[in-house]
Amino acid sequence: MKPIGLIDGKLIDLSENIVPMEDRGHQFGDGVYEVTRVYNGYCFALKQHIDRLYRSLRELKIPAVYTTEELTGFHELLIKESGITDGAVYLQITRGVAPRAHGFPDSVVPRLTMSIRPMSSVPDKNKLEGAKALLIPDERWLRCDIKSLNLLGNVLGKQKAKEAGCFEGVQVRDEYVTEGTSSNFFVVKDDVVWTHPDCNLILKGVTRTLLIEKLAPAAGVLVVEKKFNTAFVKAADEAFLSGTTTEITPLVIIDGKPVGNGAVGPITRKLQEAYWALIDRECNRK
Amino acid sequence: MKPIGLIDGKLIDLSENIVPMEDRGHQFGDGVYEVTRVYNGYCFALKQHIDRLYRSLRELKIPAVYTTEELTGFHELLIKESGITDGAVYLQITRGVAPRAHGFPDSVVPRLTMSIRPMSSVPDKNKLEGAKALLIPDERWLRCDIKSLNLLGNVLGKQKAKEAGCFEGVQVRDEYVTEGTSSNFFVVKDDVVWTHPDCNLILKGVTRTLLIEKLAPAAGVLVVEKKFNTAFVKAADEAFLSGTTTEITPLVIIDGKPVGNGAVGPITRKLQEAYWALIDRECNRK
Repeated sequence: MKPIGLIDGKLIDLSENIVPMEDRGHQFGDGVYEVTRVYNGYCFALKQHIDRLYRSLRELKIPAVYTTEELTGFHELLIKESGITDGAVYLQITRGVAPRAHGFPDSVVPRLTMSIRPMSSVPDKNKLEGAKALLIPDERWLRCDIKSLNLLGNVLGKQKAKEAGCFEGVQVRDEYVTEGTSSNFFVVKDDVVWTHPDCNLILKGVTRTLLIEKLAPAAGVLVVEKKFNTAFVKAADEAFLSGTTTEITPLVIIDGKPVGNGAVGPITRKLQEAYWALIDRECNRK
Repeated sequence: MKPIGLIDGKLIDLSENIVPMEDRGHQFGDGVYEVTRVYNGYCFALKQHIDRLYRSLRELKIPAVYTTEELTGFHELLIKESGITDGAVYLQITRGVAPRAHGFPDSVVPRLTMSIRPMSSVPDKNKLEGAKALLIPDERWLRCDIKSLNLLGNVLGKQKAKEAGCFEGVQVRDEYVTEGTSSNFFVVKDDVVWTHPDCNLILKGVTRTLLIEKLAPAAGVLVVEKKFNTAFVKAADEAFLSGTTTEITPLVIIDGKPVGNGAVGPITRKLQEAYWALIDRECNRK
């Protein structure tokens, strides 16, 4: 079982130099990515990730030169060759190599790089007992709906949270709470789940969509996509994050203060268990 | 005379693969850069570029592991080995290679990549007769003062301008005009030069600073650093851009309408000539 990489369909060692200096990913962050979880040797929600990848490519006008079948095949190849049954596949596509200039090059050959690394599927302490979050300013650009490689705002925000002993930074723009630096954010108030509407200010998370469209309705939980401010967060009964690697992670402390009574809330737990049950079914787990 | 590259002090071919997939420049745009013009075999304003590079590194908390003397030496090495007397040196430093995670890695070995390419020093039509610009929304993040690799907003803006037949996109945030996608922006109104104040919303251009602190005072031209809106731009007598490769480029058409009387203005021309005269002196040209 070892982490490995793949470039344009060819398997490589992760430490290998595979990108020239003038790849636009390296010089402009000009590319898009996806991360997919592998459970029990199966890619979870892969179709949704690939669909979102195509949308990101379209928004940046990067030509899509791989079919869904090819991309699926690359995921399966990485799982097979690495021997990793529980892990995460990372995939990115850049606008390729060209002499440096801001505008798009006349001739574009997109470059696909992928990797697989092991990741435990056993829920950690954050998932079981709840995690801490820090409210931070949202300094990112205005196209957070594109899953692009321009991640410095997210990087600096995550680091700020880390240095404050927190698992995640929850971002606030113009008083409204948008999302985590690598997750979507939800609060529960009077049995209703609230999350920021899908727009240019947040990423439409695959887990978020599954939760809103599938898990919550099946569990009889009402979700509203509406803006809310930090005062609303401080008055919330429960709070949690969603994301591909974050899964459903309860938040029990935000900005140093307990959320609700400080324990993982019942609606959060119900949705978390429903998410794991969905993974069990889809990935033939158990 | 050929373009060449350099990584961590070692000369390489520009097409060579030198970046592993998990370089944080490649996956997060987690790095900073500078572009310096070479005239007559000399790097112009190199000290100012290196000083700004150190500031960018500090803001992102990327360790600075090269001295000014080393960086100067690398520039000179590229000029000597390439045989390029008129060109541009590109330099970037990333937070190095680490298994992908948003927060900073525990152990950081920054990676320096550089390249030199030829660039004519003969003023082109845009510089002589004036260029066209398009006003576009500023969609970038809130730390435009850092010369980072997160350039997608700039890339998309430049492309939008290019597709409209314009040389540059001039960005507008909350009604105020900030800067070009790879240049600073100025207007002249009643003999006063206006430009956006130095803050988190613009890059403090080396050419901009030379113009404000040196060229304008010597030419008896008053510059004010104050915010102004698009209506002010439409009523301006003159407009121009500044930048390392842009030098001083007059704008004669903005959003399809002539600026002032549609010809290059006298104050713009005076500053442009003063800039070239400074290059002549500093780079022993003529």
